[in-house]
Parts: sequence; C-alpha cells; structure tokens
Amino acid sequence: MRKDYGRHYLVDLLGCDPETLRFVGPTREIFVRAARESKATVVGEDFHQFEPEGVSGVLLIAESHLSVHTWPEDGFAAVDIFTCGEEMDADVAIAVLTAAFRAERTVVKVLTRGRLDEPDTETEARAKAEKSP
Amino acid sequence: MRKDYGRHYLVDLLGCDPETLRFVGPTREIFVRAARESKATVVGEDFHQFEPEGVSGVLLIAESHLSVHTWPEDGFAAVDIFTCGEEMDADVAIAVLTAAFRAERTVVKVLTRGRLDEPDTETEARAKAEKSP
Repeated sequence: MRKDYGRHYLVDLLGCDPETLRFVGPTREIFVRAARESKATVVGEDFHQFEPEGVSGVLLIAESHLSVHTWPEDGFAAVDIFTCGEEMDADVAIAVLTAAFRAERTVVKVLTRGRLDEPDTETEARAKAEKSP
Repeated sequence: MRKDYGRHYLVDLLGCDPETLRFVGPTREIFVRAARESKATVVGEDFHQFEPEGVSGVLLIAESHLSVHTWPEDGFAAVDIFTCGEEMDADVAIAVLTAAFRAERTVVKVLTRGRLDEPDTETEARAKAEKSP
C-alpha cells in the first residue's frame, strides 16, 4: 500500500447565515476559532475581501491548510480542511464552522492524499434541518 | 439540480524532482507561473518554509485558490486548484506543474463544489512513466 499524506476534508456548508459570510472580519474570526478549537497550529494566513461582498481566505497550518470561499448571496461556503497531523481534530473544526455559520446542511467528503485513485472516499451529510435540494 | 460553485481539482504529483519541492523560492516560482499561464488572477498569497525542508503555500485567486504542500523526501506534492471562473484553464496549470516538478505520475480528481454528495467525480491518472505503486 502506498504511503498516505493526510486526510483532506471537503466541506460544503449550505443554508448559512449570510451575515457571517459577507466580510473578512466575521468570517476570519470564525475560522481562526475553528483552527484553535481543533488544535491546529497556524503558521500563516491570507484573507481577501470581494466587492461588494464575499470572502476568500486561507490559514496555513503546520498540519497543511484550512481554506474558505463564501457566496453570501446564496448562504453558501466551500471549506477545505487538509490535515496530515494526528493531533488536530477536523471534526471539531467542522462542528465549530457549522454552528458559527448557522449552516442548515453540511456535506463532508473525505479523501486520502497520495491515494486519490483508490476508491476509499467517504461522503456524509450532516443536517440540522434537511432541506430538499 | 442545485447550483454549482466551481470545479475543485485535487492533484497528487508523484515521483517529483525533490529539488523543486524543498524551498519556497523554486516552489513559489513554479506555482506563480502555473497561475499566470492558466489565466488565473492572483489576489493574495502566503508561503511557509518548513525546517529543514518542505513547503506549504497558497495563492488566493479571483477564481478561488491554488494550494501546494510538498514532501521532498518522497518526491510528493499535493496540489489543489479550486476555480469558479470560466476563463481559467486548470488543465494548463496541471500541465505546467507536472512538467516543472518533473512528476512521473499525476493523479487528478475533480469534484463539483455545492454538489459533493452527487456521484459525479472524475479521477484520472496522467503518467509520463508509470511506476508500480
């Protein structure tokens, strides 16, 4: 079996509170908290404000990265959590983000880097109040 | 059908030239070139040097992001290209990175953000000289 290089969580957050997604300030604060509570070690960051609203941001962490892109007009955020450490708990980060963005539905896909061509992906939807697609 | 929020290319590059993966300078230069040649619009960046070697880096682009994490000791790089624009050509970025890192094998998985729970993913291995796993 080939070596693996960590777990990559792709997280789509649907039905979020748009107020949390419009500007760098609130989005970054939530993101930094998710990193801290999941025991990630932040080593760098960059956030970008789109006009009139919308945010792209990344935290480089010792374990790899957390990234976010927001579409406040749709209450949608696309988050990535790529972690190759044992200490960090991605599920804690996902729970913090789901609660703080007030997502109605969170879809998580998990892939193993270094083995993308193996059929070992997991997909899970976590719903507070399931909406029809 | 739900709206989609762009295409996310997960790219594992195997059998790379370790010299291209050790330090921020060469890795960043290759990455900036891949962004430029694929017609991405860079809006921010952050790169981190691990000691004694290894790089994490991200380019925030108007279309979303490009990220890289390197394991020079294994000749491995994990790249993400997340693009929600029509102008940018991710395949050009993948070709530039494959050539510049001298990857022997490039595995690409493509997902549609906003529809992670739909079974529409594509996986493709591009090999210059296939190695056994």
